[in-house]
Amino acid sequence: MFAKEKVDQIVDSYTDFSIATICSHSALQIFNGAKHYGIKTIGICTEASRELYESFPYAKPDEFIMVDDYSALPVDELLEKQAILIPHGSLVEYAGEQINSIALPIFGNRGSLLYERNRDKMFNWMKKSGLKCPKILKPKEINGPAIVKFPGAKGGKGYLVVHNPDEYYSKVGEEAKTMIQEFIVGIRAYVHYFHSFDGDAGYQTSYGRVEMMGIDRRMESNADEIARQLSVGANIPISFTVMGNENLVLRESLLPQYMEMARGVCNTSKDLFGGIHGPFCIETIITEDLDIYSFEISARIVAGTNLLESPYSFYTHGKDYTTGMRIAEELKEAFKKKKLKEIVY
Amino acid sequence: MFAKEKVDQIVDSYTDFSIATICSHSALQIFNGAKHYGIKTIGICTEASRELYESFPYAKPDEFIMVDDYSALPVDELLEKQAILIPHGSLVEYAGEQINSIALPIFGNRGSLLYERNRDKMFNWMKKSGLKCPKILKPKEINGPAIVKFPGAKGGKGYLVVHNPDEYYSKVGEEAKTMIQEFIVGIRAYVHYFHSFDGDAGYQTSYGRVEMMGIDRRMESNADEIARQLSVGANIPISFTVMGNENLVLRESLLPQYMEMARGVCNTSKDLFGGIHGPFCIETIITEDLDIYSFEISARIVAGTNLLESPYSFYTHGKDYTTGMRIAEELKEAFKKKKLKEIVY
Amino acid sequence: MFAKEKVDQIVDSYTDFSIATICSHSALQIFNGAKHYGIKTIGICTEASRELYESFPYAKPDEFIMVDDYSALPVDELLEKQAILIPHGSLVEYAGEQINSIALPIFGNRGSLLYERNRDKMFNWMKKSGLKCPKILKPKEINGPAIVKFPGAKGGKGYLVVHNPDEYYSKVGEEAKTMIQEFIVGIRAYVHYFHSFDGDAGYQTSYGRVEMMGIDRRMESNADEIARQLSVGANIPISFTVMGNENLVLRESLLPQYMEMARGVCNTSKDLFGGIHGPFCIETIITEDLDIYSFEISARIVAGTNLLESPYSFYTHGKDYTTGMRIAEELKEAFKKKKLKEIVY
Repeated sequence: MFAKEKVDQIVDSYTDFSIATICSHSALQIFNGAKHYGIKTIGICTEASRELYESFPYAKPDEFIMVDDYSALPVDELLEKQAILIPHGSLVEYAGEQINSIALPIFGNRGSLLYERNRDKMFNWMKKSGLKCPKILKPKEINGPAIVKFPGAKGGKGYLVVHNPDEYYSKVGEEAKTMIQEFIVGIRAYVHYFHSFDGDAGYQTSYGRVEMMGIDRRMESNADEIARQLSVGANIPISFTVMGNENLVLRESLLPQYMEMARGVCNTSKDLFGGIHGPFCIETIITEDLDIYSFEISARIVAGTNLLESPYSFYTHGKDYTTGMRIAEELKEAFKKKKLKEIVY
Repeated sequence: MFAKEKVDQIVDSYTDFSIATICSHSALQIFNGAKHYGIKTIGICTEASRELYESFPYAKPDEFIMVDDYSALPVDELLEKQAILIPHGSLVEYAGEQINSIALPIFGNRGSLLYERNRDKMFNWMKKSGLKCPKILKPKEINGPAIVKFPGAKGGKGYLVVHNPDEYYSKVGEEAKTMIQEFIVGIRAYVHYFHSFDGDAGYQTSYGRVEMMGIDRRMESNADEIARQLSVGANIPISFTVMGNENLVLRESLLPQYMEMARGVCNTSKDLFGGIHGPFCIETIITEDLDIYSFEISARIVAGTNLLESPYSFYTHGKDYTTGMRIAEELKEAFKKKKLKEIVY
Repeated sequence: MFAKEKVDQIVDSYTDFSIATICSHSALQIFNGAKHYGIKTIGICTEASRELYESFPYAKPDEFIMVDDYSALPVDELLEKQAILIPHGSLVEYAGEQINSIALPIFGNRGSLLYERNRDKMFNWMKKSGLKCPKILKPKEINGPAIVKFPGAKGGKGYLVVHNPDEYYSKVGEEAKTMIQEFIVGIRAYVHYFHSFDGDAGYQTSYGRVEMMGIDRRMESNADEIARQLSVGANIPISFTVMGNENLVLRESLLPQYMEMARGVCNTSKDLFGGIHGPFCIETIITEDLDIYSFEISARIVAGTNLLESPYSFYTHGKDYTTGMRIAEELKEAFKKKKLKEIVY
């Protein structure tokens, strides 16, 4: 693990800062937010993606660093440009375990990203935070539909549904390291938050500075059009590859509980790995009895925020306001107050 | 029933006014709209919800009146603060029949809220207004899927689907007072309107002052993810608890008919109970032949307006504009013109 | 076919111009966009629709030309008012083959609209553009669910699903001219673009001036609530009548490919019929392996743009920006630069 002290030294040496990220996932939003606050932007980009990122005047990075693939980041060049790296889902996926050793300041806490890569740690975090979670099953305990998740499977790709131990063993085998979760019946809601370092910000909340930013529902292929297939008799198993996102508002009477959950997650994160900073998301399913089950936390910006507009950020900022803008504002404010070290690692 | 004359006396005594509502349902939107127009806001709130309503700077009420539960409203305190109560779904649910006797000015017409609590009256209103409705069945007439609704069931909770008289009697019994509706096959669209007292407003329409505000589709748990369950073989009956809302635009060629329907509803309401004022919603299902079936009217703000933005209010106001803002504007205008009495009861 | 030279003569004679369209489909958006740029608007309207189009102050045309139906356009009156006709789905449907002979400048290229009416031509265009398409089947080749489309069927009405040759012949007969497509399993995404004449515009892209405007998912009755029916045992065949639209964002890593597809479509259109100008849409399905299948191109504004707001147009314009505004801006700019002839026919 790259030492926090070294990150702090780097940040101490910065006379200004720029915002850098990999050109994928939510990079357009991150660049747009930074430009909104006049912060210099750097896109780490492959040739195949460059034209896309050049085509949006208000989301185009000021500068590109071209790479062949995202497995090795151009650390020296980024340091020279006084970059702070914004992590998102693609970075977590591409950088893999190396994320520990990246010799660059990363917005938030790189410790949290390890939790995202390890489902047992994740469930431990959620349970300690007081969240209600789906039951985790051993293969023998499967008795009815259960969802099988493989390690590192990203964007839902490769999840399986099985119904009994025999089906599990015949589809998965004896050896695989999987997590088996009971299949919860209800509506999914992915709730986006922002945890601010700055209790004195104009929009301070009483929740230890947790702001609700928005809510989405992920569109999964083929799960979200599986009804058509059932109807026409297409015999194709359900799959869960995340393909996009739709906007959602929740029953207002559920929101106090969602705020409580977010506070729990932030408080517990302090004990477990020094706290989360910036955007995060709790992935949930709501049953017909309005019980909320959490099945994942993403401790960084999620792609659902790409919808940009939500009543919840509107109520906080009095105008349409994105998570990309919120990240830029937070960094700018921390830099001004010489508190960058509190929110990068 | 608290007399209209007494409401008028109260309103006559008001030297200014504030906007009050119960902290639930669409209260954030209502407070935000009032703040937009500089009107003082009062949140009637329980301890469990207070932190939520304190956390949004642009939707936080100026003042809280704390209560243990919503069954008894703090009438004296509200009168002292010259409050006008904005009714929403949670108020209708919590206050129940008492709504008749609340000694406070309520925005709109409390007479309309009684229609919302009585399905026979509701269907009578809809039919008189020229709306096409699902067939109402007697238990013996059930022949294929039919939806059974219990009195007072709120947010869709507790609705049942049955297929024949035997299933009805075994699940519901002989005694229950239910309404049985044929199960209509199509897409649901919940269309939001605003009926203005002020024919001279800048955005006067030729529809007797009916404005189309927006459209949503309710997300019901588990109905809106039932396909996943069917696909994985989860054997859980369909249920319809409203959990949230998604935005929708309709085929433009359907809109003239929706405007006609809204006009009918307003005109009939005048004869039946003195008219509706302010926001209302017609809940519909559109079949593949583009027939529009109406199955409910909500004669007050609906939670679908919490999505805030819609092309239809944009076309009326030339900017993003919410039902919460529209309510505040209407009250402010009526107060200025000394016509509050026309739009409260 | 009305000669391009005659259109050019008409346009040369215009000392100013107005924007005209049929009051349906996306007319509110088109009028709103034109008003935004101070361009005069003309609504070609039937009595039944007039009140709707009068009820939105920011989308009401400056002038109405009343007609009994849309099969015969008031050409002389439109010429006198120096109108440019904006084509949309209802115009294509109502005007039918006559669209060739309309003696008026039409925004875009009337040649493209013929492709929309002929599925064989359409598939040829798509394949030449490098798009991956569903397999086209002969009746004998049907082996599993396949979707049968009739000529001219609009808005999805009348599409059938069949599973084998016998079912095809018994439902469709021997004589019908249909296109049979394999049933692709995945999530639908309808991606909106704008192809600009003006490579020098401030928001020039490197894609030969193609801008991504937004994405929607069509709501089809009853297909998009077929799960409820399956669940309750309603025995009604699936149908695909388009009834409305919902907003969507896509996985950002798919966007470079969508931009590539749009470029291909524009380039090929030049060879095939002189190019498309203005808005168009590629209708796609994304499988769980993230393969993108295209099944249609609409070479004019689509109703999904009625959602108005999208991150993609926000990233291009730095504010909420509609396809209706983009059309108006393009015409205004072309008129100013005396290049109208390049973008009408």
